[in-house]
Amino acid sequence: MKLKDIGERKLTYGITSELSIPFDDCAYLERDGYYEVMTTDMVNSRTHFPENTPFHHMGWYAMAVNISDLAAKGAEPLAYLVAMGLPRDMEEEGYNEIMRGMQECVKKYGGKIVGGDTKEADGVIIAVAAIGKVKREEFMPRLGMKEGDAVYVTGELGRGGVALRESNIDDLLLIEPRVREGRILASSRKVNACMDLSDGLASSLHQMMRINNLGFRIYGDAIPVCEKAKKYDDAMNLALYHGGDYELLFTMQEEYENEIKERINIIRIGEVVEERKVVLVVNGEEKEMRNEGYEHFR
Amino acid sequence: MKLKDIGERKLTYGITSELSIPFDDCAYLERDGYYEVMTTDMVNSRTHFPENTPFHHMGWYAMAVNISDLAAKGAEPLAYLVAMGLPRDMEEEGYNEIMRGMQECVKKYGGKIVGGDTKEADGVIIAVAAIGKVKREEFMPRLGMKEGDAVYVTGELGRGGVALRESNIDDLLLIEPRVREGRILASSRKVNACMDLSDGLASSLHQMMRINNLGFRIYGDAIPVCEKAKKYDDAMNLALYHGGDYELLFTMQEEYENEIKERINIIRIGEVVEERKVVLVVNGEEKEMRNEGYEHFR
Repeated sequence: MKLKDIGERKLTYGITSELSIPFDDCAYLERDGYYEVMTTDMVNSRTHFPENTPFHHMGWYAMAVNISDLAAKGAEPLAYLVAMGLPRDMEEEGYNEIMRGMQECVKKYGGKIVGGDTKEADGVIIAVAAIGKVKREEFMPRLGMKEGDAVYVTGELGRGGVALRESNIDDLLLIEPRVREGRILASSRKVNACMDLSDGLASSLHQMMRINNLGFRIYGDAIPVCEKAKKYDDAMNLALYHGGDYELLFTMQEEYENEIKERINIIRIGEVVEERKVVLVVNGEEKEMRNEGYEHFR
Repeated sequence: MKLKDIGERKLTYGITSELSIPFDDCAYLERDGYYEVMTTDMVNSRTHFPENTPFHHMGWYAMAVNISDLAAKGAEPLAYLVAMGLPRDMEEEGYNEIMRGMQECVKKYGGKIVGGDTKEADGVIIAVAAIGKVKREEFMPRLGMKEGDAVYVTGELGRGGVALRESNIDDLLLIEPRVREGRILASSRKVNACMDLSDGLASSLHQMMRINNLGFRIYGDAIPVCEKAKKYDDAMNLALYHGGDYELLFTMQEEYENEIKERINIIRIGEVVEERKVVLVVNGEEKEMRNEGYEHFR
């Protein structure tokens, strides 16, 4: 069987089968009273970036996707290791621009780059390992949602899909990980389960369904479709089935909603149900939300 | 200026310019009484591996080079994050073999793989981030050697050079990081400076010279050239100017030599001198050791 027939998530699970926290794409080491959360994400110029992507944007993006994984656990970013593969014939300016993009992102979201490696490669390949910190009782796992929980997202969806369609490199790559939102949610200690939406809403809901062995009822009307997506006739598809949104998806008891809303923008889009299905309610009609989104090797 | 005119070490230094420990290729986070040591190294099929390299060996090697960096700091391996770029058309068997190579290496040297990522790429690219632990007062830095220190290596040199020349894939890639030796040296608290010899002895001595602003006098007769290298007329060159040896290079006061020798094999090859030069003494004659070895982009 070839890797393209297996898909990224199953392959990655192969690596992380000894994960301390099953089903989370962050791992952790336990410390006195807190978790050191660790994650790694690799991006490369061949599969992640449109042609003519500025090197600066590559650097920002490589860092930001890792920070987003920390944010989804409620962790405060601490440190990064950066391993880069670069072409021999690349100009120094390109390298400097990648570093500038990374440093800007780190400056905005916290932590620092503490180690690195550079090697020759055919294209630009950047693997960041990010390390963050969160109190044990504030850690937001993927596994933990409860039947009856309300389901929330932290902002508008469809940006990633529109950006790809319109080749808007800024919107596509200068993503803004929800570190502040993640910290506020985590410190409230009300969140039962959380992940980021980098794979798209539909795919993320399906992953959460499998992990938690519970289902979702999602209300189409409630989904916060971004302005830029609304001009397209398939706006809802852009919001559901495209990766590249870096909002957080989480569940908690609805009674805490106002308390959280005083501090950050969250939108309730549905609820956790017993039946292991992802149901989308549109105009009072129930449909099944397809398990589609972005996955590498597919 | 192109990257090939700059070279790996300077580029990597660009990433790590905010390093907590200047000049070390491991970074650290300070914990109660100990350091958490972190390092990352990327390998890829295009530049690191001869054609027909078994996937298993790629996995072992990718892990082992990182573990060697921990060993050189005296750290005990704790955890690894693995980011892999793999071709779409690769067979699943290849992926499994890479994982098997990694797991065997981890099983032998300690720690565990706690997180990972897989992405599409043109070849096999593996970036491991390794995290280890060492008591603060046992950490072995690169910066710290003293004039009058004796200079040691932990084993025979030239293996890597011969393996490359003879295309001996086992010797080249199934390297054995000196974790046990590193721990014994570190816990003795006698070592003033240490690094591994992955770049070759000559290159490593020159790096240590620059970092410490001190020089070396190395005795050609004392250099432990491995048996396999001795059959070549340029045996000494193989031991000095080729990368791929993963012994440790360290300095300490000579008076502690016997104490250490009771536990591990170490060979004294020279001494630290004030003059900022690397001198090789052969047949009573002093020559300058060239700053040559393996470096990416060069």
